Amino acid sequence: MLTQDNRMLLSEIADLNQLKFELNHLPAVDVGEFIAELPKERQAIAFRLLRKDQAIGVFEYLPQEVQESLIESLHNAHIYQIVEAMSPDDRAELFDELPAGVVKRLLQQLSMAERQATSTILGYPEGTAGRVMTTEYVRLRQGLTVGEALNKIRRVDRDKETIYYAYVTDDNRKLLAVVSLRQLLFTLPDALVGDIASNRVIKARTEMPQEEVAQLMKRYDIIALPVVDREERLVGIVTIDDVIDILEEEATEDIQKIAGVSGDEEALSPPLVTIAKRLPWLLGNIALYVGAASAIAPFQKIISTVPVLAVIMPILSNTSGNVAIQALSVTVRGLGIGEVTLLDTFKLLRKEFLAGLGTSLALGTALGVLSLIWSPANERWISIVAASVMVVNVLVAASLGTLLPMTLKRLNLDPALISGPLLTTTLDAIGFMTFLSMVSMALQVFPK
Amino acid sequence: MLTQDNRMLLSEIADLNQLKFELNHLPAVDVGEFIAELPKERQAIAFRLLRKDQAIGVFEYLPQEVQESLIESLHNAHIYQIVEAMSPDDRAELFDELPAGVVKRLLQQLSMAERQATSTILGYPEGTAGRVMTTEYVRLRQGLTVGEALNKIRRVDRDKETIYYAYVTDDNRKLLAVVSLRQLLFTLPDALVGDIASNRVIKARTEMPQEEVAQLMKRYDIIALPVVDREERLVGIVTIDDVIDILEEEATEDIQKIAGVSGDEEALSPPLVTIAKRLPWLLGNIALYVGAASAIAPFQKIISTVPVLAVIMPILSNTSGNVAIQALSVTVRGLGIGEVTLLDTFKLLRKEFLAGLGTSLALGTALGVLSLIWSPANERWISIVAASVMVVNVLVAASLGTLLPMTLKRLNLDPALISGPLLTTTLDAIGFMTFLSMVSMALQVFPK
Repeated sequence: MLTQDNRMLLSEIADLNQLKFELNHLPAVDVGEFIAELPKERQAIAFRLLRKDQAIGVFEYLPQEVQESLIESLHNAHIYQIVEAMSPDDRAELFDELPAGVVKRLLQQLSMAERQATSTILGYPEGTAGRVMTTEYVRLRQGLTVGEALNKIRRVDRDKETIYYAYVTDDNRKLLAVVSLRQLLFTLPDALVGDIASNRVIKARTEMPQEEVAQLMKRYDIIALPVVDREERLVGIVTIDDVIDILEEEATEDIQKIAGVSGDEEALSPPLVTIAKRLPWLLGNIALYVGAASAIAPFQKIISTVPVLAVIMPILSNTSGNVAIQALSVTVRGLGIGEVTLLDTFKLLRKEFLAGLGTSLALGTALGVLSLIWSPANERWISIVAASVMVVNVLVAASLGTLLPMTLKRLNLDPALISGPLLTTTLDAIGFMTFLSMVSMALQVFPK
Repeated sequence: MLTQDNRMLLSEIADLNQLKFELNHLPAVDVGEFIAELPKERQAIAFRLLRKDQAIGVFEYLPQEVQESLIESLHNAHIYQIVEAMSPDDRAELFDELPAGVVKRLLQQLSMAERQATSTILGYPEGTAGRVMTTEYVRLRQGLTVGEALNKIRRVDRDKETIYYAYVTDDNRKLLAVVSLRQLLFTLPDALVGDIASNRVIKARTEMPQEEVAQLMKRYDIIALPVVDREERLVGIVTIDDVIDILEEEATEDIQKIAGVSGDEEALSPPLVTIAKRLPWLLGNIALYVGAASAIAPFQKIISTVPVLAVIMPILSNTSGNVAIQALSVTVRGLGIGEVTLLDTFKLLRKEFLAGLGTSLALGTALGVLSLIWSPANERWISIVAASVMVVNVLVAASLGTLLPMTLKRLNLDPALISGPLLTTTLDAIGFMTFLSMVSMALQVFPK
C-alpha cells in the first residue's frame, strides 16, 4: 500500500472510530506523516488515539519539533512509557536533539536497564559504530544445543530489534561466533550451537566511522553487524535499516559538498537556513576569485588591444572547470562507495591523465578552430595559443580533480572537502594567467 | 574480519592445502577479489580449488570478464552446476552481459524450473521490480497452522534467498497476506497463520521502477518486498541487499549526471571508456558555449573600450554557475531520496526564490564593491551595473536550478538530465548578454 493512497485515505475519514482504527492499523511511517501535517492543536489529540505499541512506532517517525511539542503537551506517564519502549539507538538520537533539561527529566524516569543502554550509546562520538548501534541483540552462551538456543530466543528475546542473527559469547561477553536464525532452524535440535556457528565473525569496533560500518555490511551482504569494544566484548549490533540511512546520508553529503553546499542542508530547509549553508561558500569563492581576477587585471591593456580574448577566456574557464568537476565527482564517489582505495591512487591518476590527454587534445582542437574563425586575419596566431593553453589546463584540471580528493583521503580528511567552486576558481586563476602571459609574449613577436 | 587483512592473508599463503582451506573459508566477496587480481592463467586454477557452494558464491562476485573467461576455460559440467545454483536474479544479470551464444548454450542446460525462473525475470524491462526480484521465496497456503508452516519452511525452503518473510497466497497465487518468521516463532504452533499474518501488504507491481522499489522498502523498513503482476499474483520478492545496490547506483548516477558524466562510468574504467563517457558532454558544451560566446562577440568593441569588464565577467559567470549548481544538487538529491515530491514544487520554488533573494543581494553588493575598487575613476557607474546584473543572474540561477529538474520530473524524465555544464553555459549566455547590453546603454549616457 502506498503513502499517497494512505494519505488520501486518512484525509477522507470522517468518523472518529474509523480514524482510530486506521491510525492503529496503517504503517507507523504513514501515520507519523499524517500527524505531522495536522494543525498543531490536533496533533496531540490524534496521537492519543494510538495504542501503546503503535504510539512508540509513530513517535520515532515524527519530526523533532512535533516530538518536542508532544513531550510538552502529553501526560508525563504516557511519554515515559513511549520513551522507555523506544530502541536505545533511536532514543539516543532523540536525546541528542532535545533541550538538555528535557533529556535530564526523561533519563531520570527511565528504568535502570534502558538508562544504561542510552548512556552507553551517548558515550560514543557521533558518526561512529557505537553511536548507531542498538544494545538489544540476541546473545547465546557457549555450549547450548540448537533446541535450547531456539527456546531461549522464544522465551527471552521477543522484543529484540532483530532475532535473525544470534551471537555466541563467553562469560566475559567476549564475542566468539555468530549463528543465523536460518542455520538454527535448519539444524536438528540436539546439535551444538558451537558446531554450526561461524567463528570468522565480521565485526566493527565501537570507534569505526559509520560510513565504514555501512560499506562493510554492504560488502558482506549482512543484515546485522556486531560491535565490540577494545577487549573484543560484544556491546551492540548495527542493523540494516540504519545502514541504508547512513549510505543515503553519505551520498547526499558527497553531492552537496562537491556542489558547494553544507552536507546537512535539506531540500525544504527554510530560506534563512539555506542562505546560511550556501552564502559562506559563495562569498569565500568570490574572495578567492579576487585572486583569479587579479591574474587578469594587469593584462587589461592587452585585452583592450585584442578583445577577442574576452570571448575565448570564458570557454577556457568553463571547459577546464567541467573537466575538473567530472574527475572530482568520479573520484569522490569512487572513494565513497569503496570502489577505489588509496592503493589505487597511482592507477587512478594514470587513468585520469591518459583520459585527460585524449580529452584535452580534442578540446584544444575545438577551441583552436573556433579561435581561428573568431580572430581577425592578423591575429590568427591566437588560435595556437588558445589551443595549447586549453590542452595544458584540461590536463591540470583532470589531474587536480583526481589528486586533491585522494590527498585529502590520505590525510584522513573528507575527500569531498574539495568543493567544485574552490577547484574551478583555482583553475581559472591558473588558466587566465597562462593564457594572458602567453598572448602578451606572442604580442612581442607579432606586434599589432 | 576486514578485506585488507584477508587480502594480506591470502597473499602470504605458500602451501596449496592451506590456500584451499582459506579459499573455502573466507567470505566469498574476499575470495572473488583475490581471484580477480590473480594473473589470468591462475584464475581457473584457484577457482577449481573451491567447493561447489563456495564456488557459486565467489562466481557472483567476479568481474564480468573473469566470469566469461572461466566459462570458456572450465569444464562444461562444472559451469552448469554453478549457473544452475545461482539465484535467478543474479543469473539474469549475468546473462544480460554475456554474449548471446553463450547464454543460449547455458540456458539449454538449465533445469526446467531454473530456466523458467530466468526467462520470467529476463522478460521484464531492465530497471524494474520484475528484473531485480528473485523468484525464490517462501509461499504458504491459506489455512495452515503456525506449526505446519514452520515445518513446511524447514522441509522445503532451505535454499530460498530469504526465509524471514513468508507470503500467504490463494490457490491462484494471489497474494493475500504476509507473515514474518519472527511472528511464526513467537506464536503457539496450533494458532492459524491466517490469524497472525497481516493482510495490509506493502508490495510492488512488476513494472515499478527500481528506485521506487528501493524508496518503498526504505520507507517501511522492510527487508523483503513482494512483487505482484497485474492480476495481483505473487511472482517474486526483492531483497534488501539489492535495494542497497540500487540506492548506491541511483546516488552515483545523480552525482555523475550533475557533473556531466554518464551515470555508469566507474572510477577505474579504462581511459578510452572514460573519454567516451565524458568527451561528448564537453564538446556539446563547447558547442553550446559558442552561443554564449556569440553573446560577447558583438560587444568586443565595448570590452576594448572598458577592459575592466573582462575582469568582472568571469566572477559574474562563476558565481551564478555556483548558485545554480547548489540549487540543482539539492533539488535533484531531494527528489532522488524522496524528500521532496512534485506536490512540493511551489513550496520549493518559493524557498529557493527567497533564499536566492538574500543570497543575490549579498553577492551583488560584494561584486559592486569590488568593481568600485577596480574600475577607473570615470567609470564608477560600472559597479552599479555589475551589482544589478549579479542580483538578477543569481536569482535566475537559483530559480532555474530548482525549476528545471522539477519540470523534468513532471514530464516523467530523469531530473538529473539537466547537467551542471548545460545550466552554467545557459546562465553565462544570459548573464554576459545582459551585462554587456546594459554597459553598452550606460556608455551612451556616460560616454568615455
